[in-house]
Amino acid sequence: MNSFETFKALQKKQQAYQYVLNVLGWDSNTEAPKHAFPFRAEMQSIISQEAFSLMLSKEYQEVVKELFETKDQLPKQDRQEIERAHESLQKMVNIPPVEYAAYQKLLSLAQRTWEGAKKENNYAAFKDTLGEIIKKARQMITYRNQEKAPYDVLLDDYEKGMNMEKYDAFFDALRKDLVPFVKEVLNHRPKKPAFIDRHFPKAGQKEFVEYLNEVFHYDLDRGLLKESVHPFTWNTHPGDVRYTVRYLENFMFSSIFAGIHELGHATYEMQINDALTSTNLKSGTSMGIHESQSRFYENVVGRSKAFWEVHYPKLKSIFPEPLKDVDVDTFYLGINWVEQSFIRVEADELTYPLHIMVRYECERAIFNEGLSMEDLPQLWNKKVKEYLNIDVENDADGLLQDVHWSGGAFGYFPTYALGSAYAAQIYYAMLKEFDLDDVIRSNNIAHVNGWLKDKIHQFGKTKTPDELILEVTQEPFNVKYYIQYLKEKYGSLYLGV
Amino acid sequence: MNSFETFKALQKKQQAYQYVLNVLGWDSNTEAPKHAFPFRAEMQSIISQEAFSLMLSKEYQEVVKELFETKDQLPKQDRQEIERAHESLQKMVNIPPVEYAAYQKLLSLAQRTWEGAKKENNYAAFKDTLGEIIKKARQMITYRNQEKAPYDVLLDDYEKGMNMEKYDAFFDALRKDLVPFVKEVLNHRPKKPAFIDRHFPKAGQKEFVEYLNEVFHYDLDRGLLKESVHPFTWNTHPGDVRYTVRYLENFMFSSIFAGIHELGHATYEMQINDALTSTNLKSGTSMGIHESQSRFYENVVGRSKAFWEVHYPKLKSIFPEPLKDVDVDTFYLGINWVEQSFIRVEADELTYPLHIMVRYECERAIFNEGLSMEDLPQLWNKKVKEYLNIDVENDADGLLQDVHWSGGAFGYFPTYALGSAYAAQIYYAMLKEFDLDDVIRSNNIAHVNGWLKDKIHQFGKTKTPDELILEVTQEPFNVKYYIQYLKEKYGSLYLGV
Repeated sequence: MNSFETFKALQKKQQAYQYVLNVLGWDSNTEAPKHAFPFRAEMQSIISQEAFSLMLSKEYQEVVKELFETKDQLPKQDRQEIERAHESLQKMVNIPPVEYAAYQKLLSLAQRTWEGAKKENNYAAFKDTLGEIIKKARQMITYRNQEKAPYDVLLDDYEKGMNMEKYDAFFDALRKDLVPFVKEVLNHRPKKPAFIDRHFPKAGQKEFVEYLNEVFHYDLDRGLLKESVHPFTWNTHPGDVRYTVRYLENFMFSSIFAGIHELGHATYEMQINDALTSTNLKSGTSMGIHESQSRFYENVVGRSKAFWEVHYPKLKSIFPEPLKDVDVDTFYLGINWVEQSFIRVEADELTYPLHIMVRYECERAIFNEGLSMEDLPQLWNKKVKEYLNIDVENDADGLLQDVHWSGGAFGYFPTYALGSAYAAQIYYAMLKEFDLDDVIRSNNIAHVNGWLKDKIHQFGKTKTPDELILEVTQEPFNVKYYIQYLKEKYGSLYLGV
Repeated sequence: MNSFETFKALQKKQQAYQYVLNVLGWDSNTEAPKHAFPFRAEMQSIISQEAFSLMLSKEYQEVVKELFETKDQLPKQDRQEIERAHESLQKMVNIPPVEYAAYQKLLSLAQRTWEGAKKENNYAAFKDTLGEIIKKARQMITYRNQEKAPYDVLLDDYEKGMNMEKYDAFFDALRKDLVPFVKEVLNHRPKKPAFIDRHFPKAGQKEFVEYLNEVFHYDLDRGLLKESVHPFTWNTHPGDVRYTVRYLENFMFSSIFAGIHELGHATYEMQINDALTSTNLKSGTSMGIHESQSRFYENVVGRSKAFWEVHYPKLKSIFPEPLKDVDVDTFYLGINWVEQSFIRVEADELTYPLHIMVRYECERAIFNEGLSMEDLPQLWNKKVKEYLNIDVENDADGLLQDVHWSGGAFGYFPTYALGSAYAAQIYYAMLKEFDLDDVIRSNNIAHVNGWLKDKIHQFGKTKTPDELILEVTQEPFNVKYYIQYLKEKYGSLYLGV
């Protein structure tokens, strides 16, 4: 075997460990019974440790190092594989195993501490743990010999190429243009459509989500729709891409739009070139680009007027009673209803980025300006007041609401807003090539799938987010499209412009 | 670490590999989409090979050997663990890896060959493969340095302590007593109850199986009910014991009785002492004892008159229309309807052991008397005629019907009949302590579960089948109870005795 073949053989073994751990994850998050977990944790930890040892084995490290040093002699895709393997190794290789294990243990305990604190609406019970996580997360970064600021390291981890400078510019634009626009929209709302809170039995919602699978050409020979408490997409390769929804009988939009959102993630993963399956380039290229696809499907397609002109009759046929006095215009207003709310995951498309901005500014203050855990709630609440004009009264509805920080995921949130902005820029590029509304009206989502496969999906991780945006839209990322998109859509809906 | 601790650490690692492979198996058999399988096979094979290498590692072999040689100094349970580990190793250790791999590959290809041959009703297409499997299976036995006849080795593999001598005696008794009794029953049948073939919608069947979960005290915090093509029970430890059924709208008995059957297997696994989870003694002791539990629940409890006196009203409330002209006596006759049939898995309780006898005699003739693959169909068909008085016209309904042989599972079938016989002997022992019908009529299956836990389930593999039967029934296994049970039940139902 030459070095590259050795690398591939060692990678494949690691991939197998990751694969079985992924399948455990699917089972854990969808159906494993309660008492399966203590024993499962023990078994899982053994397999994880084995996988970890394989990755940090001398043999693997040496072959990656050797190939990395001579990578310019490799064909392009091989070089990309080596670069990626090298980068992953660099994140881990200098962390003392004892410290790494201690951090993992802290995170696993923190999950419960956070759950308890949220349930009891008691930030004080989580504060020290959060401080400890942040301290250890910083410590991990010091082992990576990066010259960048710690928060820049984190931002780049979740979205290659991003940093505070770029995100600052992004959020500054939103703060300047979007915050006043949202206030204007909120001041011009008609009466809230009453149907939103009506009762929609689960069986009907399920029937409609299954109908959506057909509309979006989701291939059940390569996928599976299931229920779980939190909707998610799960995949191991393009032949096995599953997703989940949940059915809330008093909030039907949850299954419909979380469903279409996950269908966006799933379509991305299903359309990646099969030839990448045996490489470490086999999945979506970044959090931001992934989110751009899910939000494109959910919001640009799924919350469009054109979409419901075609599909509302089907929904109405399933729910004749609760929708009997609801015409398609009212329905369209309902699914795009703008509201000040405390909870990010329940926010509408327009106010959603403001929720992200709150989190970005808090994380930035923590990692870059040394904000203390004592002062964190005050900053959070101040920002919520500033952007959404509401007063946080319970930390459970404030800085305790998200799971991310308890898992050490700092720098992740901004990719959610960035994804929406990518989606808008991609949308205007698409419009130059075809009339999306026409395509939606002719129920031809296959055409959209095909376009996105061609331009984005097939490439997996062989192109960076920056490369994709530049190639698809013929210009670098520009926040103006996002603002334009939101102003056009919500201006027309609420301001008559 | 002392040697025993080393052994435990190495075992635990092997257990983790087995665990993740089991979870893959569950997913594969219940919901994984079609295109998941090629990549899965690749990943699975890597993990299997790792598990195999761990088991055959020098370190593990040496520590097992060392402990086995001094096992009499160990506490009882530790000694049992070592004996079991030693025995498992002896089955594998002398097989040349190349030959083992070739055999596994043959079996995996044979699966498809058999499926095709069965579908096309063409034994000729499977004959050579079957011959090859048998040849290789024999070859594997030669590596095990056993002095026993090959078929005795196989019989003991599936049921410790069993051999041709014992099975011959068992089946001789059935042949002598049961075959003429079955013929008499068949000659005295009333009109077949018409409701059996009626249409019972899936939703109602599902509701009833969920009701059965309550009746049998199946704990959903430690289990899960799901659908699959072939019903099965799956478990990793007492905290995670799942089972599946299938819903055939034109044959409701499938979900009800396969459901109760699997509930028997599941109850056994759930009631094993938790302290055995970290050992190789953690599961049911043998195929035969496992089957005794599933058949006890299915037939002795689930097909009893007392059971339906309590639960028939519930079933009737779910299916008022198709059961409107069916009283409980007719229903009881229907669920115990005796029929000559070609297919083992569809056979009733009374004729079932005759199907097993056919298979036992064929396997015995192959392994012990060198029966050729050419002559196998003739022997099969002759035995079916002799015991069931019907003529096999299609090999698909004859010797091609079962999956077992294509998987190299020779010696497995007899445990099915043995299980029913164990169940009968256990039943009469139980009657000495309480009136089972009374307990069933008061819907107190918890009492039955408790009794079986106390006498059988809790022990896992720490007691052999022989030990259990002797302790529970105060005498060695005796076929007479099985014959007595069948004659009492079916004599009363069909012959008025």
